[in-house]
Amino acid sequence: MSKNLSVGSVTPQRAHFASPLLLKSGASLPAFDLVYETYGELNAARSNAVLVCHALSGSHHVAGVYGDDPKTLGWWDNLVGPGKPLDTNKFFVVGVNNLGGCHGSTGPLSTNPLTGRRYGADFPLVTVEDWVTAQARLADLLGIDAWAAVIGGSLGGMQALAWSIQFPERIRHALVIASAPKLSAQNIAFNEVARQAILSDPDFHAGHYAERGVVPVSGLRLARMIGHITYLSDDQMGEKFGRQLRHGERRFNYDVEFEVESYLRYQGDKFAGFFDANTYLMMTRALDYFDPAYDFDGSLDAALARARANFFVASFSTDWRFSPARSREIVEALLHNRRRVAYAEIDCAAGHDSFLLDDPHYHALLRAYLENIEA
Amino acid sequence: MSKNLSVGSVTPQRAHFASPLLLKSGASLPAFDLVYETYGELNAARSNAVLVCHALSGSHHVAGVYGDDPKTLGWWDNLVGPGKPLDTNKFFVVGVNNLGGCHGSTGPLSTNPLTGRRYGADFPLVTVEDWVTAQARLADLLGIDAWAAVIGGSLGGMQALAWSIQFPERIRHALVIASAPKLSAQNIAFNEVARQAILSDPDFHAGHYAERGVVPVSGLRLARMIGHITYLSDDQMGEKFGRQLRHGERRFNYDVEFEVESYLRYQGDKFAGFFDANTYLMMTRALDYFDPAYDFDGSLDAALARARANFFVASFSTDWRFSPARSREIVEALLHNRRRVAYAEIDCAAGHDSFLLDDPHYHALLRAYLENIEA
Repeated sequence: MSKNLSVGSVTPQRAHFASPLLLKSGASLPAFDLVYETYGELNAARSNAVLVCHALSGSHHVAGVYGDDPKTLGWWDNLVGPGKPLDTNKFFVVGVNNLGGCHGSTGPLSTNPLTGRRYGADFPLVTVEDWVTAQARLADLLGIDAWAAVIGGSLGGMQALAWSIQFPERIRHALVIASAPKLSAQNIAFNEVARQAILSDPDFHAGHYAERGVVPVSGLRLARMIGHITYLSDDQMGEKFGRQLRHGERRFNYDVEFEVESYLRYQGDKFAGFFDANTYLMMTRALDYFDPAYDFDGSLDAALARARANFFVASFSTDWRFSPARSREIVEALLHNRRRVAYAEIDCAAGHDSFLLDDPHYHALLRAYLENIEA
Repeated sequence: MSKNLSVGSVTPQRAHFASPLLLKSGASLPAFDLVYETYGELNAARSNAVLVCHALSGSHHVAGVYGDDPKTLGWWDNLVGPGKPLDTNKFFVVGVNNLGGCHGSTGPLSTNPLTGRRYGADFPLVTVEDWVTAQARLADLLGIDAWAAVIGGSLGGMQALAWSIQFPERIRHALVIASAPKLSAQNIAFNEVARQAILSDPDFHAGHYAERGVVPVSGLRLARMIGHITYLSDDQMGEKFGRQLRHGERRFNYDVEFEVESYLRYQGDKFAGFFDANTYLMMTRALDYFDPAYDFDGSLDAALARARANFFVASFSTDWRFSPARSREIVEALLHNRRRVAYAEIDCAAGHDSFLLDDPHYHALLRAYLENIEA
C-alpha cells in the first residue's frame, strides 16, 4: 500500500447529543455521545458524504493512523483514502463508533448519569435500527441532509440496508456487502454459544464486572474463537494451517499441537484484551434481532417498498456465515421493488472476512460503482 | 418401531484385561476393563460377529433397553435388532465402550491403581488406533478371530477404517459412515474451542475435578453446544427452528428469545449431566490425531495398501462436518488399492447426525449390504 494513498494521521471527534433517544426496545437513553472520524472534505453542496458502518468488532477508526503508529491503521484503510476505491479526494467519509460500542461512544463502559456508576449490564439493548437513528442525529449535526452513500460489510451492511428503509430520502446509495436480510437459525446458534461463554464466565458478575475491576476474559476469548471459525472458509483454514503440527511431531497433550489452535488462541487472547463483553453480547443480539421483514408479516419485499436508494450488493463465494444465497434474497426483494441494484458474487477464498480484504476484483467493482456516484 | 424388532432387555458385561496395553503416545496402561454388550448369538463357526464402534458421545449400549425402561434405548437401536438392517437373527453384534470412555470402561473416572485415586487428567491420551487394539483384545476374549464386519459412523467410522489397516486379516467388511480420513483445520478448530471451554472452566481443576466432587458443567455445556451446531445442517436447523420466538414477541434481553437457543441450552445441560470432561477432551484429541496417512508420508493410498476388507462407505449430502468430499477421499484411496467398495452419497437433510437416523434410503442400502455378507 503506497503511503501516498493514506489519509495519514487522524483524530477522533466526539459529538454529544443531549436529547433523549427512544430505543426499539422501549427503553430510552437520556443523552449520549458518539465518537467519529472524518476523512476528506465535505463539499459546499454537502452532497459528497459517505457513512461507513462497522461490524461486530470494528469502530469509527476506519482509515489512517493515530500519530504515526502503523499499528493503529484503520480497519478499512485498504478501501478508504485518496485515490482508493472509496476516494477521499471525492468523498467526505464518516466513520462512527456505534451506540453501545466500546471504542468511545456511549456504551456499557460509560457512566450511567442516573447512578454515577458504569452502566454495565444496565445499558439498554440497542438494535441496528437504533444505530441508524443515532447515526442520523450525527448526520444532522454534520449538516448532512442525505448521504451520497452508506456502506458496510456484514453487520455494517445491515445498517446500510436499514438506512434505506428508515430514512429513504437521506441515502442515495446503499452498499450492502457480505450481509444478510436476517440471521438464520444456525447464525443465531453460533451467537448464542458465544453469549453463553460470556454469561457463564464467573468473572462476568451479571454484567457488572467493570465495577469490580475484572474482565470475563475466558468468555470473551471463547466467543471470539467461535466467531473466528465462522469468519474464515473451511478451504482457507485448510490452506493457511492444514494439519500442520506446531512442534513437528505429535506430543499427545492438550497444549497447542496444531497451528490452527495457536491461531485461534491468539485471536481470542487479543480480542479479550480490548473488547467489552457487554458490548459483545449486545452486538450479537442486534444481529439476531435484525429482520426488516419482521414488521411486514415476514415480507422483505414489503419492508423494502419504502427504499429509494440505488443498491450495490456483494457476496463472497466462500462466505458460509452469510452465503451468497443470503445476498440474493436482498437482491430479489430489491428487484421486486424495481430498485436499481448492482450485484456481484465474488470468488474469494477468505470466507466472510473477504469483505475486509483488498481482493482486486472486489475492489475494482467497488471503485467502479463509487466512481459513478455523483457527489 | 415395532416392539418385535427390538433386542429387548439387555445387560452390559465387563471384561478385565490384566496385561499392559502400550498406547500410541508411548504411555501404557497396566490393566484395563472394557464394558460391552452383545446382541444375537455367535454361530458355531464364530464367523457372524459384527463390531459396532461408537462416536464421541456414544457407548457400548447400542440396542435394546435396560429393564423395560424405554428411555434407556440404545443409541443405534433403529439399526440393530431382529429383522433390522443389522439383523441380530443373523449376526452376533458387539457394542463396546471405548477405553477412556465414561460409561464403564476404564477411563479418567476410574481409580488409578498406582495412586488409589481417580485418574482424572492423569489418564493417558488414547487414540483411535489404541481403541482398535483394545477392541482386538476383546475379540480375542470372545473367541472372534475375524469380524464379519466392523461398522461405525463419524469417529466410529474411523475405527472401522483403522481396523482394516491394523488387523487386515481380522475384518472382512468395514462400514465407514459419515466419516473422514482425517480432520480438516476447521474440524480441529471446533474441537479446540470446545476443549478450551472445558479447560478454562474454573471447576476443571486441571482435570482433577472428580476428586473434589465437582464437574466443569459450564465448559461441558459450551462444548456440547458448539458440537451440536456442527452436527446439524444449516437447512435443518432452519426448518426445525427458523427464527421462531419463544414468547411470540421480542423481549430484548439475553434469556431464551429464539427456539434454537432453548434447544442448544437443553442439549448442553443434558450432556453436562452425564458426560465426563476428561473423556470429552480425549475423544476430541483422538479425532484430531486420527490420520492413517501420517505414517505414510501423507499418502492414504499407502496407508490403505494393507487393507484386505471389503468396504461400504456412505456420506450425507447435508453433512458439513464430514462432507461427502471427505468420504470420497477414502473411496478414491480404496479404489487405487483395488479394494471392493460400495459407496453412497445419501440425500438427507439432517447433517452429520443423519448417520444415527433411520432414513429409508440409507437403511435400505445398509440392509442390502449387510444381507449380502456371508456369516
